[in-house]
Amino acid sequence: MTQLLDQMTWPEVKSAIDRNAIALIPLGAVEQHGPHLPLDTDAFLARELALAGSSNYDAVVVSVCSLGYRSRPLSGGGSGFPGTLGLSGATFIAVVREVIEALLNHGFRRLLLYVWHMENQNFAYEAAYLAAAHRHDVQLVVVESPFDALSDETMAALYGSEFPGWEAEHAGIMETSMMLHLRPDTVHMDRAVDDRLPEAFTYDLVPTSERMVSASGVMWDATKSDPKKGKRVFGEIASALTAVLDREFPDARRASALTS
Amino acid sequence: MTQLLDQMTWPEVKSAIDRNAIALIPLGAVEQHGPHLPLDTDAFLARELALAGSSNYDAVVVSVCSLGYRSRPLSGGGSGFPGTLGLSGATFIAVVREVIEALLNHGFRRLLLYVWHMENQNFAYEAAYLAAAHRHDVQLVVVESPFDALSDETMAALYGSEFPGWEAEHAGIMETSMMLHLRPDTVHMDRAVDDRLPEAFTYDLVPTSERMVSASGVMWDATKSDPKKGKRVFGEIASALTAVLDREFPDARRASALTS
Amino acid sequence: MTQLLDQMTWPEVKSAIDRNAIALIPLGAVEQHGPHLPLDTDAFLARELALAGSSNYDAVVVSVCSLGYRSRPLSGGGSGFPGTLGLSGATFIAVVREVIEALLNHGFRRLLLYVWHMENQNFAYEAAYLAAAHRHDVQLVVVESPFDALSDETMAALYGSEFPGWEAEHAGIMETSMMLHLRPDTVHMDRAVDDRLPEAFTYDLVPTSERMVSASGVMWDATKSDPKKGKRVFGEIASALTAVLDREFPDARRASALTS
Amino acid sequence: MTQLLDQMTWPEVKSAIDRNAIALIPLGAVEQHGPHLPLDTDAFLARELALAGSSNYDAVVVSVCSLGYRSRPLSGGGSGFPGTLGLSGATFIAVVREVIEALLNHGFRRLLLYVWHMENQNFAYEAAYLAAAHRHDVQLVVVESPFDALSDETMAALYGSEFPGWEAEHAGIMETSMMLHLRPDTVHMDRAVDDRLPEAFTYDLVPTSERMVSASGVMWDATKSDPKKGKRVFGEIASALTAVLDREFPDARRASALTS
Amino acid sequence: MTQLLDQMTWPEVKSAIDRNAIALIPLGAVEQHGPHLPLDTDAFLARELALAGSSNYDAVVVSVCSLGYRSRPLSGGGSGFPGTLGLSGATFIAVVREVIEALLNHGFRRLLLYVWHMENQNFAYEAAYLAAAHRHDVQLVVVESPFDALSDETMAALYGSEFPGWEAEHAGIMETSMMLHLRPDTVHMDRAVDDRLPEAFTYDLVPTSERMVSASGVMWDATKSDPKKGKRVFGEIASALTAVLDREFPDARRASALTS
Amino acid sequence: MTQLLDQMTWPEVKSAIDRNAIALIPLGAVEQHGPHLPLDTDAFLARELALAGSSNYDAVVVSVCSLGYRSRPLSGGGSGFPGTLGLSGATFIAVVREVIEALLNHGFRRLLLYVWHMENQNFAYEAAYLAAAHRHDVQLVVVESPFDALSDETMAALYGSEFPGWEAEHAGIMETSMMLHLRPDTVHMDRAVDDRLPEAFTYDLVPTSERMVSASGVMWDATKSDPKKGKRVFGEIASALTAVLDREFPDARRASALTS
Repeated sequence: MTQLLDQMTWPEVKSAIDRNAIALIPLGAVEQHGPHLPLDTDAFLARELALAGSSNYDAVVVSVCSLGYRSRPLSGGGSGFPGTLGLSGATFIAVVREVIEALLNHGFRRLLLYVWHMENQNFAYEAAYLAAAHRHDVQLVVVESPFDALSDETMAALYGSEFPGWEAEHAGIMETSMMLHLRPDTVHMDRAVDDRLPEAFTYDLVPTSERMVSASGVMWDATKSDPKKGKRVFGEIASALTAVLDREFPDARRASALTS
Repeated sequence: MTQLLDQMTWPEVKSAIDRNAIALIPLGAVEQHGPHLPLDTDAFLARELALAGSSNYDAVVVSVCSLGYRSRPLSGGGSGFPGTLGLSGATFIAVVREVIEALLNHGFRRLLLYVWHMENQNFAYEAAYLAAAHRHDVQLVVVESPFDALSDETMAALYGSEFPGWEAEHAGIMETSMMLHLRPDTVHMDRAVDDRLPEAFTYDLVPTSERMVSASGVMWDATKSDPKKGKRVFGEIASALTAVLDREFPDARRASALTS
Repeated sequence: MTQLLDQMTWPEVKSAIDRNAIALIPLGAVEQHGPHLPLDTDAFLARELALAGSSNYDAVVVSVCSLGYRSRPLSGGGSGFPGTLGLSGATFIAVVREVIEALLNHGFRRLLLYVWHMENQNFAYEAAYLAAAHRHDVQLVVVESPFDALSDETMAALYGSEFPGWEAEHAGIMETSMMLHLRPDTVHMDRAVDDRLPEAFTYDLVPTSERMVSASGVMWDATKSDPKKGKRVFGEIASALTAVLDREFPDARRASALTS
Repeated sequence: MTQLLDQMTWPEVKSAIDRNAIALIPLGAVEQHGPHLPLDTDAFLARELALAGSSNYDAVVVSVCSLGYRSRPLSGGGSGFPGTLGLSGATFIAVVREVIEALLNHGFRRLLLYVWHMENQNFAYEAAYLAAAHRHDVQLVVVESPFDALSDETMAALYGSEFPGWEAEHAGIMETSMMLHLRPDTVHMDRAVDDRLPEAFTYDLVPTSERMVSASGVMWDATKSDPKKGKRVFGEIASALTAVLDREFPDARRASALTS
Repeated sequence: MTQLLDQMTWPEVKSAIDRNAIALIPLGAVEQHGPHLPLDTDAFLARELALAGSSNYDAVVVSVCSLGYRSRPLSGGGSGFPGTLGLSGATFIAVVREVIEALLNHGFRRLLLYVWHMENQNFAYEAAYLAAAHRHDVQLVVVESPFDALSDETMAALYGSEFPGWEAEHAGIMETSMMLHLRPDTVHMDRAVDDRLPEAFTYDLVPTSERMVSASGVMWDATKSDPKKGKRVFGEIASALTAVLDREFPDARRASALTS
Repeated sequence: MTQLLDQMTWPEVKSAIDRNAIALIPLGAVEQHGPHLPLDTDAFLARELALAGSSNYDAVVVSVCSLGYRSRPLSGGGSGFPGTLGLSGATFIAVVREVIEALLNHGFRRLLLYVWHMENQNFAYEAAYLAAAHRHDVQLVVVESPFDALSDETMAALYGSEFPGWEAEHAGIMETSMMLHLRPDTVHMDRAVDDRLPEAFTYDLVPTSERMVSASGVMWDATKSDPKKGKRVFGEIASALTAVLDREFPDARRASALTS
């Protein structure tokens, strides 16, 4: 049986609620990922990590809106790239809040927001706060930095000694490798490039300056990607999510993993 | 090549804009569809109809958010069914408006909103109005009643002499048949039922009354569905969309249809 | 004594609440109705129908704002006609919601929204939902399609075999006839015209196209109107409202009708 | 011909715009006015004063929503009285703003907001500011304190030496007298009372305290009212509005007054 | 120990709550005050008056945002003067509401809003209403007209027989004198002028007209100011606040005044 | 002359605009900082760093609202501590946006947002985006992570080998040392404690759990603070701001620094 709420029937969702299952809400984006990756990369990875990380759990994945908060230049190229479709802060907060509230109204009591798009940080928390800060009968986990989970060995395998920081890891080795592992038919490695921002920044400029956006939308090395790296990274990040579930909702663990 | 914007890379979207391609935005819902159909039925049908209806056109389908305006009892069972996730009117308007505005900012000049969820009516128009009423360089088509397209013969084939009205056609013969045609693995015909609302209404009640909601969420006959009916209905409704494109954007017609 | 809340004193309203009277809220519009009818036609008809339909009931009519959701081209000519004053969706929802909430705060427990302007559909429901979906001590009826009530005989008397659909019945035979019946001094039959939209549409265009707006604002036949037709139609539609009250609030029926 | 926009046809409004007529928007309230006056007293007086004050002018009166900002205890009894229907500040601003914007879109270039409800102050200005502060081709006059216009002689005739301040003049001598002059059939002088607030306040309390609300809703003397006083006061206040029009829009003066 | 909440530690605030101390929220503005006074004059005076008026009380002064509702031409010069930073009505209401709600959440039960900027009137009340109208366990005092407190003698000492009305008392004798008394280092008396509006108005114009704004931003006499007048006025207005506290919260009086 | 806008007169601000001076907007918070630091620590440090970092520049510091986005448990203790006064995301965005827009309206063309409160991240950017993304005549710098500027030597001097991450550096060595350097009279070192969160988290919980909040509000070592460390850190962070100004606005550098 599917873990995806939108693929279930309503009686199946009702059963999940009756079992006190966890509702995981992945929060990605529709955002340029260079000339070689599709625009839904963040939304897809958020969903796949949520599915894999919770496969041993009685969990439902609520993947119903791919849109995230608007792309920022230093971490995603900004809203100027054709096809990058972001929401304003107020609207993103409203969407996430209303999804949480509907799930709470139906009876879910254990929820987890899973962010794969740095720009969603703080906005995701605000939605959670507005929906649930006063609901002392529920527990809502907000995971906003899932990439911090990688081991030193994996970091070295990915970047050698040149880790550029997570902001620049956009359409780079990590994301490209995971896409090669998970959905290779959507990756155009023949178009992949190694690119850099024209200048390095510790701050942002509004309106967006050409000095802070690479021509390709890639901000680091994409050509060094391969599916083995992708499998390794994906597994570690998914495991980190599993560790969160282990810690917060241990009794929701299943005897055996789902086979999708 | 895919017609789905979120499966494209940004340079592919840029090319589409440079060719003055059409952007189609399907607007469905995540809403109970009885014990036999998945919750994403409306979102899925909206997307598939948009794809099929525009396959002869230079068109991009922007299917990035499955959420619609909140379900109403008489046409979808209401928001009480587990898994029915609707947005408030203000938030739904904001999401659609911001997607349109981003597409206009990127350079799209021909757009079409395609509604498959009666509750989205008027809200979809409001989003279009706010985003584009003052933009005299663009043309935005709003299709809010796509089911009116069926021929008398098809109506008879579906319903005999007992057409219940479109509101009641929720998880009934038409939608179930189309799902059997398009995605049979998600249809549980063994659980399909023929059901009716406890009473007939020409008005609504708030809070929702049990008198206006069927136990199953089905409002008419689901068991009479079959994939052949689905193929016929799907083809006719998709053709009606094609006719709209023919009338409004004739020069965007392709020499030959896409093969997905 | 008047049924109109705004003509009452507050102790009279208090008495009505103490008797558990019904509050009816007509929702019309300020919208062009051709060269022969006044702009308040929808607001006026909504109020008069609410009064007539509830005259045998212990009911208060809350007619305090003539503004509706913005006019759409195919059903009202659109917002471009001088004097057509519509609200945005968000503001219309807020006004109706706050009126309902105030009435609930004062103690009304039985309410009815009565829409005479197709564009108000769904927005009126949203206001009702936000104000009362969680109030299980109240019952709020939402009537959004009052014209569906006409008998086949009356339809034939009005239109012969050429019923154009309700959208086009704007400033046409039905509305003009009712105005001739109710308020002939505001009807300029010498200016009435029979008009048609330049083209027929099953969808909308934004920005509004000249192809979908008639020069006069009339969309069908106005010259065939007469007060007798108006009396007949008005009576039937008002009776349909009475039937709703009979069904939902039977114990609020008065021994004898009010004489205004 | 009527001065009321909502009683006109759209071609009549178009003519007014073509003549560069003034649009006056009265802003009253639906608010308790004691046991003897109807709830629409403020909305009615705002409209009648706007009509009378502009009768010598080429002016259209846009009286389309009776609702004002919520009643405050010291000037209107507060929102607790049955039938007092106020809007929130944000919604009142939005309604007035959208009405102004529609009129500007249609071509009106000279507008006047006319407030008869102290609680509308500042909110009316905000609406005007948001709609028109950047429109250097229009002139919008905001009259928020029309009662300051009375001569010393009239003040003495009304109050002797006991003027209570305008806040307390709610359902008192001035308003009751004007209603007796203008619409005596809605005034129940047999129920009129002289009342006082339990205590005098120079500040407000939230939630409303019983110490600041009179039992009747009257805050001063209602029984001393008579239609002659009403005629005198009404004439003076209307003349003050005429003086504003004389000063700001002198070329809109008509050769002769309208006869309604 | 300080009375200023933002200078306290959280355990000190907790102690104040445990003692049921009063929270005073001064609401001023950042607004031009002529060529001789600083832009924060209103915010500074609001805070100093709140401190002085409550010095004998167990009270905490919550002075955390200097911004008020946008300046209006006749009472503050309007938003066109460089450095005048006002909020929109909706945002000002939201800020004040959220501050009140946070204080209520922490346990404060006695609050007072203290307005020193006429434009904040009604908006301050709306914030109080939204935050506390339904909280019957709290008492919130709203002081919106603190300048009405002056004795006839003081008025004569300030203005002789030429009181211009409070609106025009902007950057004039009263405010300049108080600033000379309280913070003379920020007053540039060498630049002070006596100025007048070009014309007198009882209404407002949008967009702002040059006819209603003085060149200097001063609207009356600034040069007649002196610190002695300032001390006298300041003392009287602060005493009026003390009188409100005496009346509403008498048991919060301290045995002896704070020495700051 | 002061650099603080709210201490200036309007002609002084006009001069700054005429010189094309920079407007710096510090964005801190009112948030608990343990038993030894005042609630305005973030707002104060943001302002002092902005002043010091820009002292060699023709710059105006716009410090007019101390409120930030609501405190989060892991970086500030959360909104439950008495005296922690945060704004919602939507309101914080609106305040910052309106301040920026007012400054742009007055003629400022070079602005800088300076965040000292991690929770303001992304919200500050959103305000900048909404106000200025379409203004190609202005340049707005957004500094959201000013603490990243410290040298390895200074980090070692502060933390030895035990840097806890910036989130935990709340009311700890860095902030306490800077306060001891800048405003020692508000620091109660006798109450300072070394504290830790009960558990370490890489994610957040809503509602806030006691497992993630320390009893004191301190999250690391406060007792090891001293003013020398504070001076060193303050100097380095201010210098980093100067470096940003050097890079983006080099021609605004003054011949000599201001002496306050």
